[in-house]
Amino acid sequence: MYRIGIDLGGTNIAVGIVNGNYEIVREGSIPTKAERNVDEIVADMSAFCKRLVSEAGMTLYDISAIGMAIPGTVNSATGIVEYANNIHFFNYPMVERFGKLFGNGNIYIGNDANLAAVGEMVAGSGKGAKDLVLITLGTGVGGGVVIGGKLLTGFKFGGAELGHTVIEYNGRPCTCGRKGCFEAYSSATALINMTREKIETGVETLMNDFAKRDGKISGRTAFAAMKQGDKAASEVVDTYISYLAVGVANMINIFQPEVFCIGGGISGEGDYLIKPLKEKIADQIYNHKNGVHTRIATASLGNKAGIIGAAAICE
Amino acid sequence: MYRIGIDLGGTNIAVGIVNGNYEIVREGSIPTKAERNVDEIVADMSAFCKRLVSEAGMTLYDISAIGMAIPGTVNSATGIVEYANNIHFFNYPMVERFGKLFGNGNIYIGNDANLAAVGEMVAGSGKGAKDLVLITLGTGVGGGVVIGGKLLTGFKFGGAELGHTVIEYNGRPCTCGRKGCFEAYSSATALINMTREKIETGVETLMNDFAKRDGKISGRTAFAAMKQGDKAASEVVDTYISYLAVGVANMINIFQPEVFCIGGGISGEGDYLIKPLKEKIADQIYNHKNGVHTRIATASLGNKAGIIGAAAICE
Repeated sequence: MYRIGIDLGGTNIAVGIVNGNYEIVREGSIPTKAERNVDEIVADMSAFCKRLVSEAGMTLYDISAIGMAIPGTVNSATGIVEYANNIHFFNYPMVERFGKLFGNGNIYIGNDANLAAVGEMVAGSGKGAKDLVLITLGTGVGGGVVIGGKLLTGFKFGGAELGHTVIEYNGRPCTCGRKGCFEAYSSATALINMTREKIETGVETLMNDFAKRDGKISGRTAFAAMKQGDKAASEVVDTYISYLAVGVANMINIFQPEVFCIGGGISGEGDYLIKPLKEKIADQIYNHKNGVHTRIATASLGNKAGIIGAAAICE
Repeated sequence: MYRIGIDLGGTNIAVGIVNGNYEIVREGSIPTKAERNVDEIVADMSAFCKRLVSEAGMTLYDISAIGMAIPGTVNSATGIVEYANNIHFFNYPMVERFGKLFGNGNIYIGNDANLAAVGEMVAGSGKGAKDLVLITLGTGVGGGVVIGGKLLTGFKFGGAELGHTVIEYNGRPCTCGRKGCFEAYSSATALINMTREKIETGVETLMNDFAKRDGKISGRTAFAAMKQGDKAASEVVDTYISYLAVGVANMINIFQPEVFCIGGGISGEGDYLIKPLKEKIADQIYNHKNGVHTRIATASLGNKAGIIGAAAICE
């Protein structure tokens, strides 16, 4: 038997048919077109799943369950998407509606960052671990926490908002309304802001040239210039990683997970990110003198973590 | 049958005989004299437990198990106290040594703040809840987290160090070596520092008089002067609670617990602490627009939480 994992994003809906070894045997995606009526999105999603099953030479009887990773507050107990701002789902009975359309009532839903953490644990960087914390460094800072093999959801499915913890009292404004959140310093958006601010000081830097060449400042601009030996870019990256280290060390002091996994766009920098991060974290860990070390790794499943995690929660 | 709960503190060893309803039917305490050889402390502790059992008109056969709350890194799996700085236990095989002396091998050990959280959950402010976060505002800021009825310990029993999370980047130095920890702003020690700093500005304030009367500045000085309408004291308390609110909101955004429980000396201020705290927290909670609210309460068991929690983990 196979399961379907769906990663319902703001831009694309990625779907995979997953086997018992957490391998994706067939996958595809369609645009979300998030501005549409939500029922249309769900109807499209169901039709696409059926097409994928058919293209894989399977029938609906080969599919035992469907899992969905959704960006927002997702009540796994009631099957209702309570609040998903990016895709305009509010108190939407996803399990019921999708179940009717697809003709299979065995449907599970969860928050996307949470399910990415599950994905990395069953098939990615955290394979074999029981405790894993994942953060994603993208537009925001997402979080997912697995403890003893179980997801941390909060008592009303609104927990694990790791990005919305203040690391600088009265600091940079965050989209959530607080000031000084981890997200306001460690997201790709934050790195772009730091890069822009450095360029605007008028200092001579390759970041300027790269930004002009690309037509915009991105999360890669500072890293790319740093790799060419640019001093101002090195300073930007150093500041960025210093804040990141504080946020990561906070989470390690709270959870002491076996594995701390870093995903999202910025994690593509690999060792340019992870090596200095580990150095900066080392003596900020409360138990570092005991020689106990959380393993810090980049997420290895990339954008497939959501699909695999969604399939995995159907167990 | 009864269980014994032991709260092994830096100053006193408090012991209680606890019944099946988490009620202490007999209790007492002896000084720890922490400067002694650790084996002497453990021998004294065992002898005192036996005396208490006898005084209660019981025999050792009435005691099914013994639980111990210990300040430090306590490996519940191996029964070894790995690191307890205040009482000088390092890699001490507590379960084995105490078991031999007491003549009962059914012994469980855990971190004191963690077990206080368990105590509050089974018999205190969090009774009936499955998810509870406790912080203690004392010399430091201790933390205990129960999720779905299970303690968060970290993969090597060093987690839940909630006090050692940075809330002000490059802020006040913390005893742990980091800068800007929650503990450095929200412990009783931090409040004393804030009070002293205000007095040293030379402002006219009742805090000066109270400190002179008591022979020292304490965690109560600023609150006491504020209650008399003192402006400078109100500012100190307001600053203190503003930082506390940031730390508490961080933990609620991470765990979204059913109950958030505040213990330790400063929690004795009751509504003078909790009411403004709730107001300051309100719009810092990520899910506050959903109308989902973690209940915030002071710990109700006081210094008995450790004894009851220690007895409770023996189940």
